[in-house]
Amino acid sequence: MPPTHYDPALFHAELVEAGLILPTTVKGGYGRGAVFEDILEHFDTLVMREAADDGAEPLTFPPIVARQMIEQLGYLDNFPQLAGSVHSFFGNELQARELSERVKNGERWEDLLDITEVMLLPAACYPVYPVFSGLLPQGGRLVTVKNWCYRHEPSDEPTRLQSFRMREFIRVGAPDAVEAWRDGWRDRAMALLQRLGLPVVTDVANDPFFGRAGRMMATSQREQRLKFEIMVPVISEQNPTAICSFNWHQEHFTGTFGIRQAGGEVAHTACLGFGLERCTLALLKTHGLRPEAWPAEVRALLWP
Amino acid sequence: MPPTHYDPALFHAELVEAGLILPTTVKGGYGRGAVFEDILEHFDTLVMREAADDGAEPLTFPPIVARQMIEQLGYLDNFPQLAGSVHSFFGNELQARELSERVKNGERWEDLLDITEVMLLPAACYPVYPVFSGLLPQGGRLVTVKNWCYRHEPSDEPTRLQSFRMREFIRVGAPDAVEAWRDGWRDRAMALLQRLGLPVVTDVANDPFFGRAGRMMATSQREQRLKFEIMVPVISEQNPTAICSFNWHQEHFTGTFGIRQAGGEVAHTACLGFGLERCTLALLKTHGLRPEAWPAEVRALLWP
Repeated sequence: MPPTHYDPALFHAELVEAGLILPTTVKGGYGRGAVFEDILEHFDTLVMREAADDGAEPLTFPPIVARQMIEQLGYLDNFPQLAGSVHSFFGNELQARELSERVKNGERWEDLLDITEVMLLPAACYPVYPVFSGLLPQGGRLVTVKNWCYRHEPSDEPTRLQSFRMREFIRVGAPDAVEAWRDGWRDRAMALLQRLGLPVVTDVANDPFFGRAGRMMATSQREQRLKFEIMVPVISEQNPTAICSFNWHQEHFTGTFGIRQAGGEVAHTACLGFGLERCTLALLKTHGLRPEAWPAEVRALLWP
Repeated sequence: MPPTHYDPALFHAELVEAGLILPTTVKGGYGRGAVFEDILEHFDTLVMREAADDGAEPLTFPPIVARQMIEQLGYLDNFPQLAGSVHSFFGNELQARELSERVKNGERWEDLLDITEVMLLPAACYPVYPVFSGLLPQGGRLVTVKNWCYRHEPSDEPTRLQSFRMREFIRVGAPDAVEAWRDGWRDRAMALLQRLGLPVVTDVANDPFFGRAGRMMATSQREQRLKFEIMVPVISEQNPTAICSFNWHQEHFTGTFGIRQAGGEVAHTACLGFGLERCTLALLKTHGLRPEAWPAEVRALLWP
């Protein structure tokens, strides 16, 4: 029985009431209860089981990334509104007392800070590309990562989080092989999500580029079919929520980081990512807030 | 056979050479390879297995926390030098062009940002305390969390990370019960780490409070025996590395967040945390860089 209503505020309230999420004072920064997390972990395990034969190499990075990399990749041209820049205190005793006083008095204190060398990671795949620098092995490489991503878009809407986890696969190699890999995974991901009973649709998509120039970037990205998303109605039937995305970067990263095929030819990259909280929320919206009452075939996939 | 040398730079080089860690341009921000991560995950699983009968409730929070909570808890009085404040861009098209230009020209651009409502999480337990607000159930509560913590202390030394994971247990309840829980866990943790063949020692400890006033805080914390650590030689025989810590906060959090026992009496909190990267590094230093060659009894515990 498909959901009959789509109301972000009501869905949020139901999730809280059921103990699935724990409200905090941070918009898009709620806690996840044990049942929510159990679904999320088992969904991720299912994806990894489906991908096992591909032999992706698992790498793990912290949720911070070099400021210089964010600058170099043009992130601040395209998505300045989503960036998270990390600042800290480098001062002496006197300045520390000033900081304490201002905090106590409820005054602004950020001018006493200075930038660190890091920013928050906006996409789980970013730290992987420098690892590929130089000549690739024959056939290229395939890596998987899971990480917390930060995007500054505070919202009361339960699927829009400031901090969320992505399971990503990143493929680097010959352009045709990379494009075929991305297209093949779109079919695999659609089939997997359909087996989980999710009413998925797929379409070309664009990233949330900033401003007027950004609208042209978005149009170009769509025309070149560089980004696809898989979507499920979670908070709206008309505007389904993207739970999985497929990006073909062509030479964006290989050019920046000097990555070439084994024989020196141009290499491309593509990545795909499952938004783990959004996949969890899509399952909860579609099948109800009590996983023990989900369809047997869905339960068998997630808790084999 | 115990290690015969302790050299941070050499240990780092060996870890890189073995593919256990992947250097990045961020000091204390290296990547973790598949083998490193496998040890870390199985160590965490072992801790959770040991703690299973305690019935700790697992909660999950993002690695960001409300700025207001960091202010309220006095973190900026005590550890301003470790804080990570998150700033983003709130400007218009014109300001965004200015930002892009400055980045392209290699100029400073942080004055075009403003503070967000969040900071980086400095300790995995922080988001848990507000959840306890009000009257506790009879007997108090026990929660466990695992999260990425941020501390701004860039270093080339492999055990000092800017971003690292802690497995924490947090106990709230009657003062005597909380203190007994902390002391009991110190013995349990010592025994567990000894079964893993680690040459552990334990001692009272203090947090890295800032400045001259901080030295008095540190002395007081030691005199009251509020903090204990378990240490293992990893980069130095003389100065072993803390891999596990036990903190008795008394009324620090319960006072701030209005937490009282079921009958309205004063409640205390304590927490303990395993530094998961440091536990992994201690195992690698003690038993060698090839887990397949570790002692059979250690392997049996980690990979049962």
